[in-house]
Amino acid sequence: MKAARVHKYDESVPAGSVVVEEVAEPRIEDPLDVIVKIGGAGLCRTDIHIVEGQWQPIQDADNTLLPYIIGHENSGWVEEVGSAVTNVEVGDTVICHPLMTCGLCRACRAGNDMHCENGAFPGISQDGGFADLLKTNARAVVKLDPILQPKDIAALADAGLTAYHAARKAVPLLYPGTKCVVMGAGGLGHIGIQSLKALTAAKIIVVDPSDKALALAKDWGADELVKNDGNHVNTVLEMTNGAGAEVVMDFVGEKGAQDDVWNMTKPDGSHYVIGYGGKTNVPTIDIISTERNIIGNLVGTYNDLAELMVLTAEGKVTLHTSTYPLDAADEAMQDLNNGKLQGRGILIPEGVAA
Amino acid sequence: MKAARVHKYDESVPAGSVVVEEVAEPRIEDPLDVIVKIGGAGLCRTDIHIVEGQWQPIQDADNTLLPYIIGHENSGWVEEVGSAVTNVEVGDTVICHPLMTCGLCRACRAGNDMHCENGAFPGISQDGGFADLLKTNARAVVKLDPILQPKDIAALADAGLTAYHAARKAVPLLYPGTKCVVMGAGGLGHIGIQSLKALTAAKIIVVDPSDKALALAKDWGADELVKNDGNHVNTVLEMTNGAGAEVVMDFVGEKGAQDDVWNMTKPDGSHYVIGYGGKTNVPTIDIISTERNIIGNLVGTYNDLAELMVLTAEGKVTLHTSTYPLDAADEAMQDLNNGKLQGRGILIPEGVAA
Amino acid sequence: MKAARVHKYDESVPAGSVVVEEVAEPRIEDPLDVIVKIGGAGLCRTDIHIVEGQWQPIQDADNTLLPYIIGHENSGWVEEVGSAVTNVEVGDTVICHPLMTCGLCRACRAGNDMHCENGAFPGISQDGGFADLLKTNARAVVKLDPILQPKDIAALADAGLTAYHAARKAVPLLYPGTKCVVMGAGGLGHIGIQSLKALTAAKIIVVDPSDKALALAKDWGADELVKNDGNHVNTVLEMTNGAGAEVVMDFVGEKGAQDDVWNMTKPDGSHYVIGYGGKTNVPTIDIISTERNIIGNLVGTYNDLAELMVLTAEGKVTLHTSTYPLDAADEAMQDLNNGKLQGRGILIPEGVAA
Amino acid sequence: MKAARVHKYDESVPAGSVVVEEVAEPRIEDPLDVIVKIGGAGLCRTDIHIVEGQWQPIQDADNTLLPYIIGHENSGWVEEVGSAVTNVEVGDTVICHPLMTCGLCRACRAGNDMHCENGAFPGISQDGGFADLLKTNARAVVKLDPILQPKDIAALADAGLTAYHAARKAVPLLYPGTKCVVMGAGGLGHIGIQSLKALTAAKIIVVDPSDKALALAKDWGADELVKNDGNHVNTVLEMTNGAGAEVVMDFVGEKGAQDDVWNMTKPDGSHYVIGYGGKTNVPTIDIISTERNIIGNLVGTYNDLAELMVLTAEGKVTLHTSTYPLDAADEAMQDLNNGKLQGRGILIPEGVAA
Repeated sequence: MKAARVHKYDESVPAGSVVVEEVAEPRIEDPLDVIVKIGGAGLCRTDIHIVEGQWQPIQDADNTLLPYIIGHENSGWVEEVGSAVTNVEVGDTVICHPLMTCGLCRACRAGNDMHCENGAFPGISQDGGFADLLKTNARAVVKLDPILQPKDIAALADAGLTAYHAARKAVPLLYPGTKCVVMGAGGLGHIGIQSLKALTAAKIIVVDPSDKALALAKDWGADELVKNDGNHVNTVLEMTNGAGAEVVMDFVGEKGAQDDVWNMTKPDGSHYVIGYGGKTNVPTIDIISTERNIIGNLVGTYNDLAELMVLTAEGKVTLHTSTYPLDAADEAMQDLNNGKLQGRGILIPEGVAA
Repeated sequence: MKAARVHKYDESVPAGSVVVEEVAEPRIEDPLDVIVKIGGAGLCRTDIHIVEGQWQPIQDADNTLLPYIIGHENSGWVEEVGSAVTNVEVGDTVICHPLMTCGLCRACRAGNDMHCENGAFPGISQDGGFADLLKTNARAVVKLDPILQPKDIAALADAGLTAYHAARKAVPLLYPGTKCVVMGAGGLGHIGIQSLKALTAAKIIVVDPSDKALALAKDWGADELVKNDGNHVNTVLEMTNGAGAEVVMDFVGEKGAQDDVWNMTKPDGSHYVIGYGGKTNVPTIDIISTERNIIGNLVGTYNDLAELMVLTAEGKVTLHTSTYPLDAADEAMQDLNNGKLQGRGILIPEGVAA
Repeated sequence: MKAARVHKYDESVPAGSVVVEEVAEPRIEDPLDVIVKIGGAGLCRTDIHIVEGQWQPIQDADNTLLPYIIGHENSGWVEEVGSAVTNVEVGDTVICHPLMTCGLCRACRAGNDMHCENGAFPGISQDGGFADLLKTNARAVVKLDPILQPKDIAALADAGLTAYHAARKAVPLLYPGTKCVVMGAGGLGHIGIQSLKALTAAKIIVVDPSDKALALAKDWGADELVKNDGNHVNTVLEMTNGAGAEVVMDFVGEKGAQDDVWNMTKPDGSHYVIGYGGKTNVPTIDIISTERNIIGNLVGTYNDLAELMVLTAEGKVTLHTSTYPLDAADEAMQDLNNGKLQGRGILIPEGVAA
Repeated sequence: MKAARVHKYDESVPAGSVVVEEVAEPRIEDPLDVIVKIGGAGLCRTDIHIVEGQWQPIQDADNTLLPYIIGHENSGWVEEVGSAVTNVEVGDTVICHPLMTCGLCRACRAGNDMHCENGAFPGISQDGGFADLLKTNARAVVKLDPILQPKDIAALADAGLTAYHAARKAVPLLYPGTKCVVMGAGGLGHIGIQSLKALTAAKIIVVDPSDKALALAKDWGADELVKNDGNHVNTVLEMTNGAGAEVVMDFVGEKGAQDDVWNMTKPDGSHYVIGYGGKTNVPTIDIISTERNIIGNLVGTYNDLAELMVLTAEGKVTLHTSTYPLDAADEAMQDLNNGKLQGRGILIPEGVAA
């Protein structure tokens, strides 16, 4: 089959950093294995970071993984199943939860998939979905309404799931009359806004430096727009009687956004960390004197993904995408790296309708 | 009546920083006022900080409060009540929640007393309990079993309440098989240990630099003791299969304890901030890649205090105290400041049995 | 002032059962009293039950209350306040929570207003709002945006609050992909539907015998309509893969609806009781073998009412009303009793714009 | 191997209703199968009900199951594992969760094992553990500390788990100062008492007709004992200021206990149904006017069982048992049926130390 593989880690992400080539097809080995014919695979900034080598100490510590297929936002149709698979059949439309979980550890048994003690991560720690076929397992495939098209939803598998998970966790805090600030209306943020709108009656205040992003945020359901112009913390405080918002979701997590977010959080409120890169730097006296929380968020659970698919099928969450043939994987990477990619990039194998 | 008042802010906390003198008795002015005859008033490190002037920018910003009576951990008997008071009668034994709340704002109505929009703090922002009499209000007095002696429990009003509140919030996380690290087995920590023991079946690991404190922690219910000797983070990790504990309660909050605590917290776990002084300094990637939380804790609710009094009446929580006559308030302050005070210092007005 | 009073209990609810007459104005007696100039007072089926004497054993056990003013769904403007009232001022637009609570018992302090140990119920156990003026207390008045008109929202004070409270409690159970059955799309049910729509992304299935009510339910946000025609339990089971719905809200509670509702509830699901009159009659083996719950619901909290007012101000919840002058209170009662009243009946004192 | 099988359903449970005979050993067929060498298998009243034919319409509707091996409370050592089993190894000491779950449906993925859409129930719907060997699956085996002896704990697999599950669900309601009534201090109730003691600081009031059971309840941690003598509802109301208890756990569920339990439940409180046989018969007006709940409870989750094993290993929960050799299965059944069995009956295969 065809697949786009990384052959070396290189900080500059030069043209040719991802090579589309002929490789052996994956085979069922474990009774719970599932092979998915890819209908669409999302391109993510993490793929850039992988090529740059940022993840190598974590996902390839002994430097034995190259060359391998990247792509961790995958959707398609079931091609083949292992002997113990009972939840999907050949031909089913599926989206893939990013983590292959064991179903046996305490975390899996508590519905806390991302904390599986035995998980594997296709596209990160083993071959992923920039290919005709992907091997994952029974616990990772969410069966979908066949009217959903893999290419339209693939990017919800990771980016969308992460935003939905954070919004879902915040539901108990966001009763009518509360406010939720969304810092950053990009790829994750815009799913966050739509998820918050679908799940709560809170007022949504969106902060972003881009007028275009703010205008789109309005369409997705934002109630108030704040230009990130240096005075945005004050603007948010003015909108919230000087107190800040009950929940502030940080989809940026670096370059000072994490400080701004803390300063926009109301006493007894919660600062949700989703984006990353910077450091949180808060005096413990500020934490205790206001009883504010800093909440971590890591991708999402399988059940979260299934719920997000319900909202998607109902048209409550939509994605803005640009498609590329799988053959153009390297071009798509370059476009993303150079800021030329509009919406979420989706790679589509040959023979699948774009 | 007699009262111990602060007359000036002075960083050195010199002898004479608190003056016991004759002052006018408080009078009922608001229909919900309650005057309490003090049976015991706890001495707290915060009293030292007040004298040093650390709190002046917050509690006395326009510098008009001096001289005033300190003392924010108060217990005694109801002496007089306003016309609208229905929950206590003259003669009732009471402990005073530290905050006089309004009962009308959203926070009060949600049982979230410390976030009252209209609260006043006797002993911090107005006259407190180092005196024969204290004025507070109906919403701040918890009626007690008359067998409880004010001098034995006064320090639970603030220090004890703070520790109990944090333990109580952590209950849902601490099912059988989990572990809770208590960093610091001092004045608050030892109430935390007893509260955790009463409320949960989790294993309690106590970390402290003092062998004496660790020995006492064992008596209070600690399951494992770890000497804070520089290798304590590793020791805790070894005790927890390398993963850390589901909950880590930081009763120190400064001098690196806040970093150690974070490093002892398990993925998907929570770091509770109770002590303060330092800064939390965590890369956002660590927060999201492990989905850990940092949880603020501010004193406790009225209902928390009522619950703590139940545990106290049942003998499940006890305090170690040293008593001083109110006349010796300054001596007690000096002893606390010089590390000579064993257990929690309690001031007792003349005429009350010590 | 003018007021509509009940002079006798009579099962037949004859004309003249409520007499509009001149009575003394209420006066501030307690420092927390608030007198409200009524802008609109909702007429409720409970008022019929009071006249019939159904409530006499509960609200007037020693038969000393007559004659008294009924009306427990009240909204208007603050006319006068007691000396300890700090949350409203003369002239403020307010809606009245039905219970005057103490703010001092455990339930009040936990935000659980309806379980106040010392509550009083204007219009039920003492003079109510079918009058020019009503006496209530500071804890019962919710300050409103002055653009809200009392006559438009008065009926939300009790009927609307009850429906909202049940919907609010069910939020954690109603994630995307779940279904909520609403049994009965009448006065409470239609607020329930709108509240569920505002608070959750669940599918709402409405069951009612009236085609007209079902058509209105569609406008309020129902996703599926089921005619209550004897086969409705099967119809709902077919819509839910034979399993039933995660939550079923019974706004009827009698004449077999309570049995139907139980039979429409999914294993691990919850049957919310809101309407009343019948008996629940379930084998305990059915409860345990399916782990279903039966959940009681009693009016709502003050904070619930404040949240409902937010949804109302945003246009997410609206009421269908018919207005009567206060002078026509008896006629309104007869119309309600005879099934001639469309929407919710609202009594408006002379001098208030209808 | 040897096994005790039921050959016919007979209401009278005559001697010989269970036959110990030589049968074929189970074999690994599915990659997730696990074969356990039985160390002890608990005898339960449900086994009597199976022989009587009470369960036939549910577990053997088409009457094709006989003869089959009963026994659904099983513990032992892993004898053999399928190719996909990763969580246990041959030789591990294990206790068996009663349900073989799929790990793939929403319920399994939410940690809600008993609501698995594809579960199988050894000892009920297929061959169970009154035998030398039992076939179950990887998701059903909890690995234990090897110091635990299967014969000492086997009965915790179902009876103990059911009691623990109910106690665990009630933890958020049972803060200090609350009361929990345990109706029935028998096989399940005594685990309930010990679990409540380990998990909460609530006062435990035990109601039972047997003085001997009450005396044992005291040893297990009961705070108050009430003889079930016809006046017990009043006695409990007197102990609770006339209000009832926040939680009442009904381990009886028939013969009027279900009515007594409802009448002992405080407004805003919850009646937990665990025992069964009778009918709950409550006016809906009582449910709504007091906002009480009736809560179903069905066995427990795998994680519940793992937690219960922690408490058992710590000595916080213990079982009173009487052992029989597997060969005496029929005698044990007769003893249980005739009220001659003290504590929980445990069958032990030949060659296992009793």
